[in-house]
Amino acid sequence: MPPSAGRSGRTVGSLGEFALIERLRRLVPAVGPGVRVGIGDDAAVVHLEGEVLATCDIQVEGVHFDRSLCTPGDIGWRALAVNLSDIAAMGGTPRFALISLALPAETDVEVVDGVYGGLAELASAHAVVVVGGNVSRIPGPLVIDVTLLGEADTTLRRSEARPGDEVWITGAVGKAAAGLYLLRHPEIKVPGAEALVAAYRRPQPQPAAGRLLVRAGATALIDTSDGTASDLLHLVEASGVGVRVDASHLPLPAGLSEAARAAGVDPFAWALGGGEDYELLFTAAPGAAVARAIRAAGVAVTRIGEILPQAGGRWLVRQDGERVPLSASGWDHFRSTP
Amino acid sequence: MPPSAGRSGRTVGSLGEFALIERLRRLVPAVGPGVRVGIGDDAAVVHLEGEVLATCDIQVEGVHFDRSLCTPGDIGWRALAVNLSDIAAMGGTPRFALISLALPAETDVEVVDGVYGGLAELASAHAVVVVGGNVSRIPGPLVIDVTLLGEADTTLRRSEARPGDEVWITGAVGKAAAGLYLLRHPEIKVPGAEALVAAYRRPQPQPAAGRLLVRAGATALIDTSDGTASDLLHLVEASGVGVRVDASHLPLPAGLSEAARAAGVDPFAWALGGGEDYELLFTAAPGAAVARAIRAAGVAVTRIGEILPQAGGRWLVRQDGERVPLSASGWDHFRSTP
Repeated sequence: MPPSAGRSGRTVGSLGEFALIERLRRLVPAVGPGVRVGIGDDAAVVHLEGEVLATCDIQVEGVHFDRSLCTPGDIGWRALAVNLSDIAAMGGTPRFALISLALPAETDVEVVDGVYGGLAELASAHAVVVVGGNVSRIPGPLVIDVTLLGEADTTLRRSEARPGDEVWITGAVGKAAAGLYLLRHPEIKVPGAEALVAAYRRPQPQPAAGRLLVRAGATALIDTSDGTASDLLHLVEASGVGVRVDASHLPLPAGLSEAARAAGVDPFAWALGGGEDYELLFTAAPGAAVARAIRAAGVAVTRIGEILPQAGGRWLVRQDGERVPLSASGWDHFRSTP
Repeated sequence: MPPSAGRSGRTVGSLGEFALIERLRRLVPAVGPGVRVGIGDDAAVVHLEGEVLATCDIQVEGVHFDRSLCTPGDIGWRALAVNLSDIAAMGGTPRFALISLALPAETDVEVVDGVYGGLAELASAHAVVVVGGNVSRIPGPLVIDVTLLGEADTTLRRSEARPGDEVWITGAVGKAAAGLYLLRHPEIKVPGAEALVAAYRRPQPQPAAGRLLVRAGATALIDTSDGTASDLLHLVEASGVGVRVDASHLPLPAGLSEAARAAGVDPFAWALGGGEDYELLFTAAPGAAVARAIRAAGVAVTRIGEILPQAGGRWLVRQDGERVPLSASGWDHFRSTP
């Protein structure tokens, strides 16, 4: 739906800045535990326990989302999800969000309501309170930038993986890439399509699992926003180690293989190279004690590889047993494999 | 300078996302007191004392700045200044910044270096450390969104002004509006032009004065970002009171009257309606004790009016003694006055 084709016929340009802010303020009541001053003063004032975690992510229409594929609610949900996943990937508890919006003047106010509504829905599910933000007009695409504050006593870095550690991942990989493909090709029908599409449009970040990983003694942690291979390489690079990943161990979601076959794509292209899954990729000492603790809390985890010494290199063991260098654009190695 | 006309010939599109992030990371070393984890992990981890203050402001090329009038360094400086002033207006100490940038692919990397350089210069002057951020491409104007975290034991609201309080303001008003006019009309020569232009391009936010106002016992505080009249009305509205402002008391900077005369504008149009001065507008009990404490620290302050009961209304006493309703677009009342 283009910005000018809203249903109410009322645009943010006709509403004006202060009326728009007042409208948004009503959509996200900035009250809750720890909120000393919410929306409406020069800055928010909040109370946080322990160390303060902070992350931000700017999303641009036409780059990060396409309004023919996402509802306004999806856009808001996804904008917060990225940040929730970043806080999860430090093992922290998300608490307070600030939202910057740049809107074309012809944007229908219902679009803005929808963006805020989707964001507020996910915020509420994680007890996150929106305490501030601002709006601007823009002679260009819609832009949303969310800053999220969290708290933690102890955090998990991406830089502490040690040779001999096992590499684990929560949930399933490649689901957002498959979901996006299915959204773009509604003619392809596969079992599990609905869940794959939902994984793309309404990803579920996992701060609770991140906190469990801190307590259970994981050694390093990152979330998969760029792609399983790319984010694993970030972790390996930051830790100064090598790695071996077993493709046959990668947890593929239901329907991914069928969707990939219909698309003429290698399923591992999505599993290794597709981003936006927001799973937690972690390392832990051998013995699976950490995995047992996480599973006991109801979180599915799969061992996908092993940390090697730096000199051991960075490898992917393909399903056919061939060992190939692990590449950030993981699927390059697969494109040539029918 | 349009985005495509950089001198190095190297664009952010040719550099790529990860190389750009690495380049920016070197421009703002995220180390300093209280920084547990800086740029490079999923989220920053910082230590803050007391309550946490948070504010953000999104600035869009062609809306908030014009690259024919501002250098890239000015753009970065101004983007942080807005937020420093918001923390100042709560009486807090600014500590840590996160920067989101959306850049057209054809942006010269020297432009990005300049934006970061100007921002880092102001950050350094206030001991603020850039601990995070992110970049995106955008098929449209350059966008910069800065989030600033601060700390405070006690904050000053805009909502606590009481009838009988005096209304005070730091520094001088209308200088940024006059400076912008002079930038656009370089043919107009007036004494003080350089300082006026600098006030527009490199505004000086005042967190130290904000902290002094908390300690000295001011009752309410706001910064003048929208304009003296508009921001005073925000304060009055939030406090549920009335106000009387004396135009003849407004502190006009050197050169403003001459520039206004040359422009054919009433100087009070700029003094009351011109925004982006980032002065601190505060209220205090009668007797000037707060003003004396602030002046003792070297900060110029001027009494410009008085808080009235709600029923007393909101008035501007013009220089000719006539009392007119105070309007957010302060200068509307002046346009008709030659």
